[in-house]
Amino acid sequence: MTTGLASAQDGIDINERFQQVRKQSLSLVEPLSAEDCALQSMPEASPAKWHLGHTTWFFEQFVLRRYQPDRPWYAEGWDYLFNSYYQSVGPMHARPRRGVLSRPALAEVLAYRQRIEAEVSDLIADRPQDIELSRLITLGLQHEQQHQELLLTDIQHLLWCNPLQPAYRSRPVEPVAGAKGGNELDFVARSEGFAEIGNEGIEFGFDNEFPRHRDWLPAHALGNRLITNGEYRQFIQEGGYRSAALWLSDGWATVQREGWDRPLYWAKDLASSFTLLGEIELDDAAPVCHISFFEADAFARWAGARLPTEQEWEVAAAAQPVRGNFRQRGSLRPLPHQPVRGAVGQLYGDCWEWTASPYVGYPGFKPLAGSLGEYNGKFMCGQWVLRGGSCVSPEDHLRASYRNFFYPADRWQFMGLRLAKDLP
Amino acid sequence: MTTGLASAQDGIDINERFQQVRKQSLSLVEPLSAEDCALQSMPEASPAKWHLGHTTWFFEQFVLRRYQPDRPWYAEGWDYLFNSYYQSVGPMHARPRRGVLSRPALAEVLAYRQRIEAEVSDLIADRPQDIELSRLITLGLQHEQQHQELLLTDIQHLLWCNPLQPAYRSRPVEPVAGAKGGNELDFVARSEGFAEIGNEGIEFGFDNEFPRHRDWLPAHALGNRLITNGEYRQFIQEGGYRSAALWLSDGWATVQREGWDRPLYWAKDLASSFTLLGEIELDDAAPVCHISFFEADAFARWAGARLPTEQEWEVAAAAQPVRGNFRQRGSLRPLPHQPVRGAVGQLYGDCWEWTASPYVGYPGFKPLAGSLGEYNGKFMCGQWVLRGGSCVSPEDHLRASYRNFFYPADRWQFMGLRLAKDLP
Amino acid sequence: MTTGLASAQDGIDINERFQQVRKQSLSLVEPLSAEDCALQSMPEASPAKWHLGHTTWFFEQFVLRRYQPDRPWYAEGWDYLFNSYYQSVGPMHARPRRGVLSRPALAEVLAYRQRIEAEVSDLIADRPQDIELSRLITLGLQHEQQHQELLLTDIQHLLWCNPLQPAYRSRPVEPVAGAKGGNELDFVARSEGFAEIGNEGIEFGFDNEFPRHRDWLPAHALGNRLITNGEYRQFIQEGGYRSAALWLSDGWATVQREGWDRPLYWAKDLASSFTLLGEIELDDAAPVCHISFFEADAFARWAGARLPTEQEWEVAAAAQPVRGNFRQRGSLRPLPHQPVRGAVGQLYGDCWEWTASPYVGYPGFKPLAGSLGEYNGKFMCGQWVLRGGSCVSPEDHLRASYRNFFYPADRWQFMGLRLAKDLP
Amino acid sequence: MTTGLASAQDGIDINERFQQVRKQSLSLVEPLSAEDCALQSMPEASPAKWHLGHTTWFFEQFVLRRYQPDRPWYAEGWDYLFNSYYQSVGPMHARPRRGVLSRPALAEVLAYRQRIEAEVSDLIADRPQDIELSRLITLGLQHEQQHQELLLTDIQHLLWCNPLQPAYRSRPVEPVAGAKGGNELDFVARSEGFAEIGNEGIEFGFDNEFPRHRDWLPAHALGNRLITNGEYRQFIQEGGYRSAALWLSDGWATVQREGWDRPLYWAKDLASSFTLLGEIELDDAAPVCHISFFEADAFARWAGARLPTEQEWEVAAAAQPVRGNFRQRGSLRPLPHQPVRGAVGQLYGDCWEWTASPYVGYPGFKPLAGSLGEYNGKFMCGQWVLRGGSCVSPEDHLRASYRNFFYPADRWQFMGLRLAKDLP
Repeated sequence: MTTGLASAQDGIDINERFQQVRKQSLSLVEPLSAEDCALQSMPEASPAKWHLGHTTWFFEQFVLRRYQPDRPWYAEGWDYLFNSYYQSVGPMHARPRRGVLSRPALAEVLAYRQRIEAEVSDLIADRPQDIELSRLITLGLQHEQQHQELLLTDIQHLLWCNPLQPAYRSRPVEPVAGAKGGNELDFVARSEGFAEIGNEGIEFGFDNEFPRHRDWLPAHALGNRLITNGEYRQFIQEGGYRSAALWLSDGWATVQREGWDRPLYWAKDLASSFTLLGEIELDDAAPVCHISFFEADAFARWAGARLPTEQEWEVAAAAQPVRGNFRQRGSLRPLPHQPVRGAVGQLYGDCWEWTASPYVGYPGFKPLAGSLGEYNGKFMCGQWVLRGGSCVSPEDHLRASYRNFFYPADRWQFMGLRLAKDLP
Repeated sequence: MTTGLASAQDGIDINERFQQVRKQSLSLVEPLSAEDCALQSMPEASPAKWHLGHTTWFFEQFVLRRYQPDRPWYAEGWDYLFNSYYQSVGPMHARPRRGVLSRPALAEVLAYRQRIEAEVSDLIADRPQDIELSRLITLGLQHEQQHQELLLTDIQHLLWCNPLQPAYRSRPVEPVAGAKGGNELDFVARSEGFAEIGNEGIEFGFDNEFPRHRDWLPAHALGNRLITNGEYRQFIQEGGYRSAALWLSDGWATVQREGWDRPLYWAKDLASSFTLLGEIELDDAAPVCHISFFEADAFARWAGARLPTEQEWEVAAAAQPVRGNFRQRGSLRPLPHQPVRGAVGQLYGDCWEWTASPYVGYPGFKPLAGSLGEYNGKFMCGQWVLRGGSCVSPEDHLRASYRNFFYPADRWQFMGLRLAKDLP
Repeated sequence: MTTGLASAQDGIDINERFQQVRKQSLSLVEPLSAEDCALQSMPEASPAKWHLGHTTWFFEQFVLRRYQPDRPWYAEGWDYLFNSYYQSVGPMHARPRRGVLSRPALAEVLAYRQRIEAEVSDLIADRPQDIELSRLITLGLQHEQQHQELLLTDIQHLLWCNPLQPAYRSRPVEPVAGAKGGNELDFVARSEGFAEIGNEGIEFGFDNEFPRHRDWLPAHALGNRLITNGEYRQFIQEGGYRSAALWLSDGWATVQREGWDRPLYWAKDLASSFTLLGEIELDDAAPVCHISFFEADAFARWAGARLPTEQEWEVAAAAQPVRGNFRQRGSLRPLPHQPVRGAVGQLYGDCWEWTASPYVGYPGFKPLAGSLGEYNGKFMCGQWVLRGGSCVSPEDHLRASYRNFFYPADRWQFMGLRLAKDLP
Repeated sequence: MTTGLASAQDGIDINERFQQVRKQSLSLVEPLSAEDCALQSMPEASPAKWHLGHTTWFFEQFVLRRYQPDRPWYAEGWDYLFNSYYQSVGPMHARPRRGVLSRPALAEVLAYRQRIEAEVSDLIADRPQDIELSRLITLGLQHEQQHQELLLTDIQHLLWCNPLQPAYRSRPVEPVAGAKGGNELDFVARSEGFAEIGNEGIEFGFDNEFPRHRDWLPAHALGNRLITNGEYRQFIQEGGYRSAALWLSDGWATVQREGWDRPLYWAKDLASSFTLLGEIELDDAAPVCHISFFEADAFARWAGARLPTEQEWEVAAAAQPVRGNFRQRGSLRPLPHQPVRGAVGQLYGDCWEWTASPYVGYPGFKPLAGSLGEYNGKFMCGQWVLRGGSCVSPEDHLRASYRNFFYPADRWQFMGLRLAKDLP
């Protein structure tokens, strides 16, 4: 497996899978108006409509036009509007200006989706044995799933910017998850030794998960769950945001410049936070979320620990099934951990975990050939790896080798932390 | 007349007038989708939906709540959202962030309009002899008319920002306006003497048009029409944007920083420009439009002339009926001048004329009492007076004493220029 | 008088005058080290060394090279370094980067001064009857005097930026100026009528003081002295900086953005301020100084008054001899007013007075011919007129028609205010 | 060795060493005037005077005050001025404002140096067996050597900012270094295996070089010399700066924003560059220098290779003596490589080599205890490791385990690159 594009998942018809993922995207915008879908709250976020268009353009650009080079674009100028950052396929509309596009209208974008879906579906039906096509479709669906998550994180930010604080979805009448007792933080040790890191090439993986390689890991211990709101509030109350000694230099500068004194979305009184369900009371046993790498790192230092490396995380995660509080659970927010004695828990779902690892290529990393090579490789500078997925990640999207990455000051994703420790 | 608020226009029932102006606002958004109405293309512009809400808030804040102090707000938080800059009535949503408000939806804002209109209408009917109410309604309608113009200028900017370049309205099959010959620029002289400047207090006027006062004007001459696209293209082609000597120091700095080399909306080839009707060929005989004060001033210097003072303009305009290419004509763009021998023409409509006058209060100027005092007075710093109205001004809104004002680098309004000269 | 360049002052030999003014510049840097002279504390200020070089370049550029077109520049590249803003004579070193020039060294600049002085002196001796030369020399000396003032205001800012807060000069053992009693603010009335405004052309004047012209002034009253530190502290203590209603819109934005809550150089406790003599106790009877136009305007509104127009000021000042607390007095700070019953006092010296007049050309204004036309005219946008000179202005430099100008947010000059009122 | 502070170098008396290093600092400013020493050309650079003061403060703060807690500061306020970034010992003067400090004068700083040197010298003499003191002195001297290098790189930038382009030192009449033939780029292979990385603790090392640990290195090859000006010019001429595909995303954004099209200090014609010796012709065989990480990375991609990791570099370097073109050689610029068949050459001196390694702590990294813990650890975010030293590094300062680090857009240090390749 050298291309980074694994074959389709066993036992699932690729066309069926295609329909299914595409429909999920639509279902995400059901609670939203055309107006909700057109707005952009900050340069890093995109309008929901743009996500819907861009994921469709991805199929038009990288699938349809590859197999039908003479096929005209669906609509003039849309390739420019919906190209995100692929310099090698042409120029693009500036990202911070995606929020000035009232046209095409949401309805037009939905029609675009339908038409491209029909064409792709026909193409799949026409070429049942085409492995390369199957790989491209899989890549396009993985890509779409990434944007499904972004669509939700971006909408949460947009709604929060509105002083009326509207909810994306009203809160379900659900029982609060389980007993809050018996949830003390524990550490699970692993002695030094070689580890196999990276995607095995059996299931799909992005190019940045390859090549699988051996790495030497020192002895260490991992926290058995994510850090909670209650623990993080204590950090705040004991002066965490006022003590320069706890922070990286760039982190401290950010705290000063931005006036940070709590996680994004937390109310000033540290008692509630804004979520996709509107403003809700903070659950002290649930994982703290929407913190930057700087905050995660400062908390770990305050706690006398450190963040795990991505390799430490992956070794622990590879031993477990991919189960957790993902989007399909419907909570749309991190939930308290249900501890299992002696096990590292909460590895998947709830919120992405900042690691101590800068995002760089693995030894021998090769980006995908051609324009798709811009997918991951060119971002390997200045960002940090996050692992494990979140409560808005599609549950069939994650895996132990999955590498997410963001800038250290980013907070609007569902980001939290787990502690780790060196062992002698 | 000391308050700056004249009585309602003679012969028109105030309630009828109220209905009429309010309906015009609605008609302006007819060609637009809810998405079009929600977006903001730059900090200086506002979404169309916000204009609709703000002009309604103005009646709720300054009319309904004045007469019914215990009346609750129509909806919680909307006073915060739709307050523009009235610090004395409370805090407000930041202007550059009006484009993150997907809620209230356009439909909700339209319902808000209906309800407030009904209440105001009832109030007027209840108090037929209340002069003060009548003055407030008139002020509110004049205010609404100002926002009608802004709505159109802001939409033009938004549509232009979209690479698809959609038109606000398709172009009518209209005959091009008249012969282009016989339109040479001419100057009309006036000898020195006293002039009466400012609103007489018979018709409505904003506080900044008062008090009417005498002023001494030196001998001068005014151009008989606005400067045309053809003349302005010559300025460009002869190096106008590359010759520092023609520019004010701040203007030259702006040209360098922004890379200006032509009016806003002009195509690079100087042959066409973006308008509310989409991209159309430049008519060499039509007035140049969408230029800053800096550009108007540089052109005048290049032409061996200067801009008129606002007093010089007003004296000429006061002698003429208020007629011209206003919004009701439907052209939605400046049109060529139809010359009349010996007369200063094109004073009203087509485009606002930059004057050589910084925007300050007249001698003895007093802002309106109370919060409405924030309407005009606090902007008397750093801006320049424009006169005459434009092709998107409501035709029953203008008058000889009307003072518009913008920053010298602003270009997105319909702004052009007329030349003037000193006489010995 | 059409050129704006008056003849040399009667009774003073031009060469003697030249020597005298040039020596004054040198005496100003006597208390300073080469290091003090090389630094720049903000983009608006210049190093002392640059002032010394630029005023010399002015003579080399506009005098020597005019009479000796083939004369080589004194040193290669210095014309680029010491040109301030004369685009028409060539490109220039960027103003905010004047503080990166350690070379030429101060000693080299002093040698440059000597050499150019000798050449100019010879030229004057060679052409005793050359009126044009005499005018240019006079312009150069007026220009140098302006920079003498700037050198002191810029040094005060630089020393203040240093946490060690060094003084430019140690404080003399001087008696505090007079009794502080009997200094109540009074207003002196003038009825409406024509006024002759502008330089008569007998003594020197800059182009912006011409042409002298008649203007119609409404009835008004002027405060008999400048506003004091004591009065200004009261404004602060009664919430002046926290009340949006008192401020121009741009002023309020500046207050918020910059966090202003007192004049520049005032200590947080409002009891002392930094001066050229180091930190000294605030004298409640002395004029408030180092305030912006925004602050002056807000104070006036708070006091129920307004700022005078420059015409109102000039009419009052023209009736008085040019006497006051100028640089030659040696106080280097504003001093309390010595009232004279019924007279408008403190018109000259102490600190420049912000007026209500935007800086524009007088009717019929023509800049100087050629490159010197860039001296004043191109700054006629966005700035406000100040009148009267300050405690660091050379006393033989001021006159009733003298117009200074700065941006409304500038504070580092010696700037204060006087009140005015409309009369019915 | 757990503290990160190794004992003094064997065979050299610590006091003698102290005198020697301190004198070297003084010798660096001999060609400079007090004015040269006071200026700051950009926020990242510091005035030479500040470097002299700060390195002295380091001894006062971390040595003298530790052993003599009641000793008063040498001068009031200097601890504030000369603290660089040690938040835990108190507040500090803002780094971008170091260029507004004309006081203390250079002469005062030199006197400060003398006095502190005398005190430290006495302390060393008084405590001959104090290992901890000896370690602190060693740390202080290593610190001072780092600033010696910065002083030169900062002065080069300052002189370059001056349009007169003065040289720091005139160019010696030296023979150009050797024949330019026979210098083809070659790669030297190493098979996979464990490597011992980090400082052994025999000689001094900063905390970031510890703990020494084993790491697994894949098979790879290293270029036998640095990339040359000639090779880099080819990259430019073949469109390197215009091809987005070669660049990291943040790098491409930087290229666009800054308008980069060649290394810092290179002339537009790519034929010469500014150096400490003034403008000199580019030697095609000498290493390219003053490029950012982004440029190094893009070049490597263009060349079909990559940058070495810091571990790959260290393994190669540890096998060689620390010899090369350091400051003591006096060239003050990178020189051509003298190849040795089959060897990886030019590892030390000439210019720092950007590596493919983000700057983070080694497994088990612990910062120094107390305030000195701020020395290195808090910068472990967003920067990249450079190795090997440069032509302005003190020759007795470098070692195989030495880790330098800068932001990926920094260019004003002497920074170049070496290629590496994966081996199967």
